[in-house]
Amino acid sequence: MLDDTIVAIATPPGEGSIGIIRISGSEAIAIGMIVFRPKKNTDWFKKDNYKLVYGHIIDPESDEVIDEVILSIMRGPKSFTAEDVVEISCHGGIVPLNRVLKTVLNQGARFAEAGEFSKRAFINGRLDLAQAESIIDLIRSKTEAGAKIAISQLGGKLSKRVSALQSDVLGQLAKIEAIIDFPEDDLPEATLDEMSLCTAELINEINKILESAESGKIYREGLQTIIVGKPNVGKSSLLNALLKEQRAIVTDIPGTTRDVIEEVLNIRGVPLKIMDTAGLRETQDLVEQLGVERTRKFLDQAELILMVVDAITGISEEDKNIIKLIKGKKTIFLINKIDLEARKVTAEEIQKIIDGNPVLEISAKNEIGLDKLEQTILELVLEGKVTAADNILVSNTRHKHALERAAFHLSEVLKGIRDGIPPDLVSIDIKSAWEILGEITGNNVTEDLIDRIFADFCIGK
Amino acid sequence: MLDDTIVAIATPPGEGSIGIIRISGSEAIAIGMIVFRPKKNTDWFKKDNYKLVYGHIIDPESDEVIDEVILSIMRGPKSFTAEDVVEISCHGGIVPLNRVLKTVLNQGARFAEAGEFSKRAFINGRLDLAQAESIIDLIRSKTEAGAKIAISQLGGKLSKRVSALQSDVLGQLAKIEAIIDFPEDDLPEATLDEMSLCTAELINEINKILESAESGKIYREGLQTIIVGKPNVGKSSLLNALLKEQRAIVTDIPGTTRDVIEEVLNIRGVPLKIMDTAGLRETQDLVEQLGVERTRKFLDQAELILMVVDAITGISEEDKNIIKLIKGKKTIFLINKIDLEARKVTAEEIQKIIDGNPVLEISAKNEIGLDKLEQTILELVLEGKVTAADNILVSNTRHKHALERAAFHLSEVLKGIRDGIPPDLVSIDIKSAWEILGEITGNNVTEDLIDRIFADFCIGK
Repeated sequence: MLDDTIVAIATPPGEGSIGIIRISGSEAIAIGMIVFRPKKNTDWFKKDNYKLVYGHIIDPESDEVIDEVILSIMRGPKSFTAEDVVEISCHGGIVPLNRVLKTVLNQGARFAEAGEFSKRAFINGRLDLAQAESIIDLIRSKTEAGAKIAISQLGGKLSKRVSALQSDVLGQLAKIEAIIDFPEDDLPEATLDEMSLCTAELINEINKILESAESGKIYREGLQTIIVGKPNVGKSSLLNALLKEQRAIVTDIPGTTRDVIEEVLNIRGVPLKIMDTAGLRETQDLVEQLGVERTRKFLDQAELILMVVDAITGISEEDKNIIKLIKGKKTIFLINKIDLEARKVTAEEIQKIIDGNPVLEISAKNEIGLDKLEQTILELVLEGKVTAADNILVSNTRHKHALERAAFHLSEVLKGIRDGIPPDLVSIDIKSAWEILGEITGNNVTEDLIDRIFADFCIGK
Repeated sequence: MLDDTIVAIATPPGEGSIGIIRISGSEAIAIGMIVFRPKKNTDWFKKDNYKLVYGHIIDPESDEVIDEVILSIMRGPKSFTAEDVVEISCHGGIVPLNRVLKTVLNQGARFAEAGEFSKRAFINGRLDLAQAESIIDLIRSKTEAGAKIAISQLGGKLSKRVSALQSDVLGQLAKIEAIIDFPEDDLPEATLDEMSLCTAELINEINKILESAESGKIYREGLQTIIVGKPNVGKSSLLNALLKEQRAIVTDIPGTTRDVIEEVLNIRGVPLKIMDTAGLRETQDLVEQLGVERTRKFLDQAELILMVVDAITGISEEDKNIIKLIKGKKTIFLINKIDLEARKVTAEEIQKIIDGNPVLEISAKNEIGLDKLEQTILELVLEGKVTAADNILVSNTRHKHALERAAFHLSEVLKGIRDGIPPDLVSIDIKSAWEILGEITGNNVTEDLIDRIFADFCIGK
């Protein structure tokens, strides 16, 4: 499968100035020779590397000009896939890109599967698995914090820590296998003590890495949030006020499409995915009509609930019904319209009805209390452990689970040594820990897992 | 204004494997030196041209890695803008691209206006105006035919013809000015005869170029089409049948976003922009409720109407009302459901009610008659002059109007010579024709027109 040459459109679909067609594989340059007619540098294919060549893509059968392009040549192993890569910089519309793509496909390249370029980079050893996974995290990052974590993982920050762990575990395995190999010796008490110590240290190290994993996950995946409340309490005003201030775009530079992340807020780096107002309204109606089931489903998916109550009307039966529905969920209560004189309800009164959840006073309309709301969201979702993105190592749930499983097996090792379990049985857990850590960097993964991971990538990556 | 250095995201917005940040201007390389840290080739900025360099974009203040990138260096005048151009090939998400963009902006580059790169290419003489305009036509082309016309214009096919015309007109001007300069000479009958002949030839040449302009416009802009008919005659089935067969995507390669051109059909190269069904349904309701005004507006915008009638129920009062509404519009009548036994109406009967418009029998459900419909659409909209895309020179209405105006002034010249108008008056029309032709290639345009043309481009182009 690695023998064939693959091609895909590598830029996002749509209209843009530039669109890139990426070709990778042993035939990449040969195909370039057929479909590309350089303006001047006619022997580009002979020796050039890391060069740009100006010219045209032509239909080799009709000699028709398909597009005016610039060709990039990156010969393996110094390329993204570590194979020969040719990138064609075309005019960025759907039709011209598809015409160039078709021309390349006609010369025997195969249309790349989702993630296949990254997969080849991994299989050819240019990136480990955690690094390859960070690429898609970087591309999909919704906030600067998310991008920072991904780029540090791409740089190998997590991989290095995991590789070091794996190497230490391997050392433990060597030690215990020495014991197994020479069972006639005296029980090496000192060795076992030392092993316990080392294993405890390894568990500590894993726990340290895992400490920031929950924050990392939130930075990476965002937080499903829902705003609830009876009609006319100011839910839409709250959403608008939040959207205006913290829309999840890093810069306010014109030309950035806002649609793509329409309802994602950036709360100091945490992407808050706010359920759309249509849904909210529906929820609303359903609450009124006691169509509770669907509402429950929305609420079940939510990881954070912002419940808005009206400072003027006070807590009504409707409010109480909603409070019942969201019981047990992470909720922030917001008393809205505090700018108005005739307020009827205070934070203290609400505190009596609900317990433990924070209650804040805001005015969505006048943008009062939003800073405090922001701060409270962070504290609540990151459970007081607000870790700066720079210090986060793990953000991918797959990596988190692997580390947890490795720590579990190491704790079994500790227990085994303490309980005097035979060394050959203890060694099984050490080996498991080693293997599981290898799942993160990919030096011990099944083909099936690899396929699943890369299938989640986009075409052209 | 040409002194500063501009930057923009040059790829379509959204998630993709690769995103390009394009920098152009005298400081492009200097900015690259600050924000880019090469992995190896540390003196790339000294001499390299048409080279790729691998490395990282860093925040020069914090030294933080922003992205892993490949830099392209294209020094002026051998670049798109004819200025120094640096392109940064980044990971293609919105956040990483915006971070890199921000880093470049922080070093003093200015965010480019829409079309500003192409405008610089024009102002710096790398492209004439018609060529620059063809770029955006190429990017926005909806069918292969549209792309073909644009790429031939980009290659200068139209520009060459217009330049030749302009030069011939200039020759005429020189001749007549010689007459004006030496008024004491005898009236040079022979010269005037020759001028008449030449001018007539020029008009002929312009008309020849204009012959395909209507087709060109349709290939470029598409045709606003609306399907009308009373409820349950099979409008949606027709739309679905057409969409299934001729959706305006050149290849059926997976991964192409279909949303962008959701309701554009490709009828042998002609993009048919079908009004969405919500609109149709509304029209429908409004016809029933006699809310005719809005319906009329929809119908007024339409350049082609497909009216569906039901072969089983025959022509009803409702149908007759619709027929009244669309009177005078380019319409194709479709008798649908001809696959069913109990048909009540024939093409002949409908021919009696309406006159001149084509009537076809189809079955949207069984996809009968769609080929013939396609053929009829082409004949009707291209008025029998179905010109192959390869032979089309003009597609832009601005160019078409300029040619028509130039031809008008030349016909005034002809008339003037015939009527014995004084040569200095005749020369005014020759000069006008020359100037107007210059509007096409841009050697005679106002700054205002240039601004208007490029403002229609996308950011980053």
